[in-house]
Amino acid sequence: MREVRADPVPLPPACRVLAHRVEAELAAFLRVQRREGVARAPGVENLFDEIERVVGSGGKRLRPVFCCLGYLAAGSETGQEILRAAAALELLHTFAIVHDDVMDGSAVRRGAPSSWAHFRTRHRRLGLRGDPAAYGISGAILAGDLALILADRALMASGFPAERLHPAVGRYDRMRTEVVAGQYLDVAAAHRGTAGEEAARRVAALKSGQYTVEGPLHIGAILGGAPEALLEVLSSYGLPLGEAFQLRDDVLGVFGDPSVTGKDRDSDLREGKRTVLVALAVAAAGPEDRVFLEERLGRPDLAAAEVERMRSIIEGSGALAATQALIAELADRARSALAADVLPGGVRVLLEGLVETVTLRSR
Amino acid sequence: MREVRADPVPLPPACRVLAHRVEAELAAFLRVQRREGVARAPGVENLFDEIERVVGSGGKRLRPVFCCLGYLAAGSETGQEILRAAAALELLHTFAIVHDDVMDGSAVRRGAPSSWAHFRTRHRRLGLRGDPAAYGISGAILAGDLALILADRALMASGFPAERLHPAVGRYDRMRTEVVAGQYLDVAAAHRGTAGEEAARRVAALKSGQYTVEGPLHIGAILGGAPEALLEVLSSYGLPLGEAFQLRDDVLGVFGDPSVTGKDRDSDLREGKRTVLVALAVAAAGPEDRVFLEERLGRPDLAAAEVERMRSIIEGSGALAATQALIAELADRARSALAADVLPGGVRVLLEGLVETVTLRSR
Repeated sequence: MREVRADPVPLPPACRVLAHRVEAELAAFLRVQRREGVARAPGVENLFDEIERVVGSGGKRLRPVFCCLGYLAAGSETGQEILRAAAALELLHTFAIVHDDVMDGSAVRRGAPSSWAHFRTRHRRLGLRGDPAAYGISGAILAGDLALILADRALMASGFPAERLHPAVGRYDRMRTEVVAGQYLDVAAAHRGTAGEEAARRVAALKSGQYTVEGPLHIGAILGGAPEALLEVLSSYGLPLGEAFQLRDDVLGVFGDPSVTGKDRDSDLREGKRTVLVALAVAAAGPEDRVFLEERLGRPDLAAAEVERMRSIIEGSGALAATQALIAELADRARSALAADVLPGGVRVLLEGLVETVTLRSR
Repeated sequence: MREVRADPVPLPPACRVLAHRVEAELAAFLRVQRREGVARAPGVENLFDEIERVVGSGGKRLRPVFCCLGYLAAGSETGQEILRAAAALELLHTFAIVHDDVMDGSAVRRGAPSSWAHFRTRHRRLGLRGDPAAYGISGAILAGDLALILADRALMASGFPAERLHPAVGRYDRMRTEVVAGQYLDVAAAHRGTAGEEAARRVAALKSGQYTVEGPLHIGAILGGAPEALLEVLSSYGLPLGEAFQLRDDVLGVFGDPSVTGKDRDSDLREGKRTVLVALAVAAAGPEDRVFLEERLGRPDLAAAEVERMRSIIEGSGALAATQALIAELADRARSALAADVLPGGVRVLLEGLVETVTLRSR
C-alpha cells in the first residue's frame, strides 16, 4: 500500500456533537474579542480574520473533545464553562500550527493556504510595498501570538471557580511549554540531521504525546474535580495514544494522500524531519539506500523522482510496516487502560471509539 | 544637530536599585524554569540560553521599574512578590523584541546580534543542515513564544492573593494584546506605505504608549491595591510619557548614534516605518523631496547616500524639530499630572526623574 486512501475515520457521533458545541462557543468568544479588539485598535481585524479563517478551515477538534471527555470522566455535566475551556485548547492549537507552518515553510494546511502563505498572497493581491514573504511571516507570527493570548483569555474567563481553575491553568501552562519545547527539538533534529528512534520518540511524546490527548483530558478532568486516580488512568490511556497520533502524523506526512490530508506530502522529507519513521528507515536500509536517504533528507530542492525513491526506500526497508505495528501496539495499550473501574461507562465507550479515530485517520 | 550624541540619561539611582533587584529575581526565576524545562525536555536549554542572552544584553528595565513604582505609589513596600511580577514584564518585553526583530529583519539589538541573527550564526558555526536563515527564524519564534509563556508564569506565580492577582492579570492581558495589535498596525502601515500623523500617533500610543509606562504602572498599582483615583493619575502621567517614549524611539531610529543605541540607524527607513517623524516629514517636505522620500521608504536595497539624503530631508523639513517639540510637550503633560495629591512624595520624585530618562535618552 503506497498511499493511505481509506476514508477518514470520523469522530464518534457523540464526540461530533461536542465538537460542534465547542465550535459555537469558540465562534461566540471570538466575536466578542474581535469587537473589543477593533474598538481599541482599528485595523487589527485582519488578525482576527486570520484566526477565524484558520479555525474555520477544518480540523477534527480532537483536543477540545478530549477536554470535554476528561470533564465528563470526572462526573461533571457539559456546560458553557467547559465548552469555553475546550475552545481555549483549539486556540492554543491554532497558535501552534500557525507558527509551525512558518518554521516548516509549509504553504498548505487543511487544504488551504497556511497563515504565512495567506498573508503573502494578500500582500500581492493588494499590491503592497516591500517583500511579500516578509509580510507573510510577520502576519503569521502576530496571528499566532494573538491566538496564544486569546487561548489564555478563554481559559481564564471560562467561569470556573478559582480552586478548579488554578490547578487547571498550571496543567495547561505545562502543556503549552512542552509544545514549544517539542517543536524546538524537532527543528533542531532536522537541522542537526541525526536522530535515532529513541530521540525521535521523545520528540513525538513531547510534541503530541501529551498535547493532543493526555493534556486536554487532564485539563478537563481537573476542571471537573477529578481525583488523582482518575488522572493516572487518563495518562495510561492518553500518553500511548498521543504518541500513536504523532506516529500516524509522520506516516501521513510521507505516505498520505494530499487531497485527504490537506497537506503537501513531500514537505516532511524536504524539511528533513527526523521522525520515528525516518529513524527506522535509516537504521534498516541497506548501505546504498541509507546514503541516498541521509544525503537528501532536508534538501528543499529535491526532485519529485528523488522524493519518490525516498518513499520507496522507507517502505522497502520495512520502516513503514514497523511504524504501523508500533501504532497498533500503542493503540492496544491505550485501549487496555480503559478497563479501569474509575471511568464512567459512557465515557469509556467514547474514549474507545477515539482510539480508532486517532490511529487510523487519513488526515 | 545631526546625531543625538549626548550621554544616555541614566535611571535615577533609586530606580537603578529596583532594576538590579528585579534582575536578580528574574535570574533566579529563569534558573528554576531552565532546570525544570530541561528535566522534561533535554535539549531545550538552547531556548533558555537565548532568553538569558537577550535579557542579559542590556536594556534599562523601564517596564519593571514602572511596575515597582506603581506598587510603591499604592503604598505597598517592595518585596519578592512585586519583584517577580516586575520580572514578568521584562520577559514580556523579551518576547516582544525577539519577535519584532524577526519581523523587521533587524540583525542587531542592544549592540549584539538579534535573536534570529544569533540562531543563524549558530547554524553556520555548527555546520548544521538546511537553510541558516530558516533556522534563525525558527529559533527566534520559539524563543519568543517561550518568553511569552514564562512571562505569564512569573506573574501567575508571583505570590499575590487571588483578589489582587486576578485584576492585575486582566490588565496585563489587555496590555499584551495591545502590544501585538500595535505591532501589526505598524507592519501594516509600513507595507501599505501611507500613514498620516494621526494614524502614526495611534500606532505609537498602542505600541508603546500603554505598554512601556501606563500598563506597568497600572499592574504594579493594582497589585498594591490602588484605588481608582490613583490609577487615573498614573494614566495621566503614563499615557503622554509612553507616547513620548515611542517618539523618542522613532527619532533615535533615524538620527541615533548606533554605537549608543545598539541598533542599526538605517533600518527604520529601509523598512519604511511610518512613524510620526516620517509622517511629519512627508507632509512638510517640498514636492521633489517628498517624492524622493516616498519612493524610497521601505526599500531594503537603499544606498547609504540615499539614506543620508532622506535624513537631510527629514531634518530640513522641520519634522525632527517638530517631533522633538511634541516630545517636550508630552513630557510637560506627564510632569503636570504628578501634582496630584494622591501620590506619595518619594514616588513623585522618582516618576519626575523618569520623565527625563524616557524623553532625553540616547538609547
